[in-house]
Amino acid sequence: MWLRTRCELEFTITEPTPFVLMLRPYRGPNQWVAQEECRLSPTVAASEFIDTFGNLCLRLVAPPGEFAVHASAEVMTADNSDRGPGAPFIEVQHLPDSALSYLLPSRYCESDRFHTMASEITAGQQPGYNQVAAIESWLRERIRYLPGTSEFPESAVEVNLRQSGVCRDLTHLGIALCRSLSIPSRIVVGYLHDLQPMDMHAWFEAYVGGRWYTFDATQENLRRGYVVIGYGRDAADVALYNQFGAPVNCNRQETRVERID
Amino acid sequence: MWLRTRCELEFTITEPTPFVLMLRPYRGPNQWVAQEECRLSPTVAASEFIDTFGNLCLRLVAPPGEFAVHASAEVMTADNSDRGPGAPFIEVQHLPDSALSYLLPSRYCESDRFHTMASEITAGQQPGYNQVAAIESWLRERIRYLPGTSEFPESAVEVNLRQSGVCRDLTHLGIALCRSLSIPSRIVVGYLHDLQPMDMHAWFEAYVGGRWYTFDATQENLRRGYVVIGYGRDAADVALYNQFGAPVNCNRQETRVERID
Amino acid sequence: MWLRTRCELEFTITEPTPFVLMLRPYRGPNQWVAQEECRLSPTVAASEFIDTFGNLCLRLVAPPGEFAVHASAEVMTADNSDRGPGAPFIEVQHLPDSALSYLLPSRYCESDRFHTMASEITAGQQPGYNQVAAIESWLRERIRYLPGTSEFPESAVEVNLRQSGVCRDLTHLGIALCRSLSIPSRIVVGYLHDLQPMDMHAWFEAYVGGRWYTFDATQENLRRGYVVIGYGRDAADVALYNQFGAPVNCNRQETRVERID
Amino acid sequence: MWLRTRCELEFTITEPTPFVLMLRPYRGPNQWVAQEECRLSPTVAASEFIDTFGNLCLRLVAPPGEFAVHASAEVMTADNSDRGPGAPFIEVQHLPDSALSYLLPSRYCESDRFHTMASEITAGQQPGYNQVAAIESWLRERIRYLPGTSEFPESAVEVNLRQSGVCRDLTHLGIALCRSLSIPSRIVVGYLHDLQPMDMHAWFEAYVGGRWYTFDATQENLRRGYVVIGYGRDAADVALYNQFGAPVNCNRQETRVERID
Repeated sequence: MWLRTRCELEFTITEPTPFVLMLRPYRGPNQWVAQEECRLSPTVAASEFIDTFGNLCLRLVAPPGEFAVHASAEVMTADNSDRGPGAPFIEVQHLPDSALSYLLPSRYCESDRFHTMASEITAGQQPGYNQVAAIESWLRERIRYLPGTSEFPESAVEVNLRQSGVCRDLTHLGIALCRSLSIPSRIVVGYLHDLQPMDMHAWFEAYVGGRWYTFDATQENLRRGYVVIGYGRDAADVALYNQFGAPVNCNRQETRVERID
Repeated sequence: MWLRTRCELEFTITEPTPFVLMLRPYRGPNQWVAQEECRLSPTVAASEFIDTFGNLCLRLVAPPGEFAVHASAEVMTADNSDRGPGAPFIEVQHLPDSALSYLLPSRYCESDRFHTMASEITAGQQPGYNQVAAIESWLRERIRYLPGTSEFPESAVEVNLRQSGVCRDLTHLGIALCRSLSIPSRIVVGYLHDLQPMDMHAWFEAYVGGRWYTFDATQENLRRGYVVIGYGRDAADVALYNQFGAPVNCNRQETRVERID
Repeated sequence: MWLRTRCELEFTITEPTPFVLMLRPYRGPNQWVAQEECRLSPTVAASEFIDTFGNLCLRLVAPPGEFAVHASAEVMTADNSDRGPGAPFIEVQHLPDSALSYLLPSRYCESDRFHTMASEITAGQQPGYNQVAAIESWLRERIRYLPGTSEFPESAVEVNLRQSGVCRDLTHLGIALCRSLSIPSRIVVGYLHDLQPMDMHAWFEAYVGGRWYTFDATQENLRRGYVVIGYGRDAADVALYNQFGAPVNCNRQETRVERID
Repeated sequence: MWLRTRCELEFTITEPTPFVLMLRPYRGPNQWVAQEECRLSPTVAASEFIDTFGNLCLRLVAPPGEFAVHASAEVMTADNSDRGPGAPFIEVQHLPDSALSYLLPSRYCESDRFHTMASEITAGQQPGYNQVAAIESWLRERIRYLPGTSEFPESAVEVNLRQSGVCRDLTHLGIALCRSLSIPSRIVVGYLHDLQPMDMHAWFEAYVGGRWYTFDATQENLRRGYVVIGYGRDAADVALYNQFGAPVNCNRQETRVERID
């Protein structure tokens, strides 16, 4: 499935403002980036680096005035969203080293607080994929998905109190529940074709049966058409942009995904 | 300064229990590990890996029964605790890539909530080292240091509400305050010679003037004799041990540091 | 300076053939990639990874028949080619860890064989930048630059015997000479604007005075307009493509660089 | 199997001389280091770093006079030397990214020159483990193992001409032959219990059937008792020590391995 993604950000800057942006599609085994573009207006010196998760990050200092970033890409998405019912729980001693950090609590996923709740939600389930699927179903039924309602990331504890949230919030709660059962889980941010309403999206992956599987409590069924921008422990690791110094206004953020095959 | 460090942990295990332990001194430019030892009793297969922060981690599955870990080392500590008054703030665009992740909020350092408070604490200070020193002084005066009172890590927000805490808690609040000013800051765990009462210790570093400087709000003056075990964003990254599955009791934890030169 | 780069490769494949290609511009502090594209014809599943040098690599299996790869990019090149006469030699104990591997001999740079020769070439020079500049001048005067004459990489020893070579060959000899003086040196491959005749290019960098400086013995003067694709120890690390299994013919390789600002 | 390893190096230094040493046992899944020690005499400031292969390296500047390094360790070796006849060849497109660099030619393993020879040696063998086993047998029969005869590493081409060599030399030829068949292969240096005559040792691993297997053409049968110090592409990556500046004499190098269980 070939997709064209597009994200436009517009800011009004009052003093030179450092930014770290994460807008490039992820380069990995499950998607192929045939073309991509990142235009800065006005053009400023920018540089890129790869963070510890392998995400491509962009650094720049935005000059005073109107400042816009237009990022687009043509991506072939692999069929990486297959279901794996019955995929077994991997005992901690058999996890790859690289999965271990996704067992620990993080800024927005206080997994150390959810063990009892996760055990109840997954009662009777076979350890592994089926537990995560039970968590995903529980989120879908119990936490109201209210796209567009939150400005700042909320932590799993906060989301659980509020019983509603945006995609990122449901994701945080799903991750915290998985980790509390010793299942590695990580956030993914990116695009989803046909997301309603269209916006940047967040979902989660869990490591069971020897690989990462995709879960998304905001959608009725797992669909194709996910384009990954970045992986992390939670939203703190994968902000679309981090801006330092005096807060600036993002006047406009527009996201588009079109099918092109 | 040559130090012999020693940490002993004893557990009663009821079912095979996976552990990840962080007990080995850090191998880096500022300390030299001449000798070290890690004995498991009973002896079990164990393996080591290096996490994304460069920390040496140990994985094993503890068998049912009494289980003990004895770790010791002879370490020459470098004089890495010098003060640097006036060391300037480094603007985000000039930070090394490796320092950037220490600007972001993390599990126990909700730096996104402290900008106003940090600005007040550091009012009138020259940006950089002097701001961090003001934060350290403020912590020393305002947050009661009560060693041995906390079982679980507390986050900066919680510590600020409670106005007291263990070394780890003061560290979390210090880090959150630094990061809210765009100063990279990280936790360090390890040993401190002559710490009263003796225990594992935590302190923080801040990146100003082109290098990391040591800060420790629990001590009246910055002393020598720090032995680093690990670096991280907060206590979630550098737990002495993470244990998975049914909780086990740590019956005994003993820490010793002797001068040997 | 804004450049549009373009590389086209065409192969005739007889059996499914695995490739690793290095065609994407490097993402680092000294150049900004505003747009880039990599088209495979026919379209096949491809995936990318980042090697230990930070180079973006592309993996795929080419199907039997005609197979083409068209890679292009729009790159703003930083002014990273400034001269630094007098930049001092950095003693090994003060080099950053990351530079150390560039002191060791490698496949095509047998630096262990060149100490005497390098000492003679640089006699009387101030240690550091001036030594490397003397090596560069010596290469320019003594080794005939014969673009387009070599099919396989030649090692420094071979180039020194033959006294002529393509850009890659002069680079290997330059690197071996630098390393034999304990100056870290690495190969760079990429594009050079206005290179005559146009082709993919190779040059080298040396670490003196606390940073990497660019050297190119094939050009009369150091010019702007270098676009980096990859860094490595020598040509073995940065082949435009490595192909496995039965050898295939590259029917056509075309390179273009245009100025677009 | 518990082993105590010991390596002693003694040098006469005439001017301050930078060293990078690789003496610590490797920390990985297949061996457990219960105790280790590294004494410098006289004591000098030293620091450690982890190279891109995960090897623990030691940096220091040796002062003029007699200089000694005594490294010892207690290591539990895992049974990682099992044979795997029939383990299949892994096609390049299915290799993990981390294995790919072990397919390329390197300083002492000019795999680009050995394809015909490797095909002859392995004619009729099932692709994979059996090919490597045929290469190992061929080395054992055709290349005379003459321990203690070589001072400098020799490359696969040189060893093949000379038809004899030390463990490192046979290893280089074995690796070059494997890589020429698109089988990832790497050098391992370390200790071997009961090696006759006792010395530091080198052997190789090949990646077939989804994991690394141990091969050693210098021994009649694959035995237990290997203690790994480091992994690399060839001897250039894993020298026991690299010394920079004016050459110094190693007056004495003594190696011991005792069984302690």
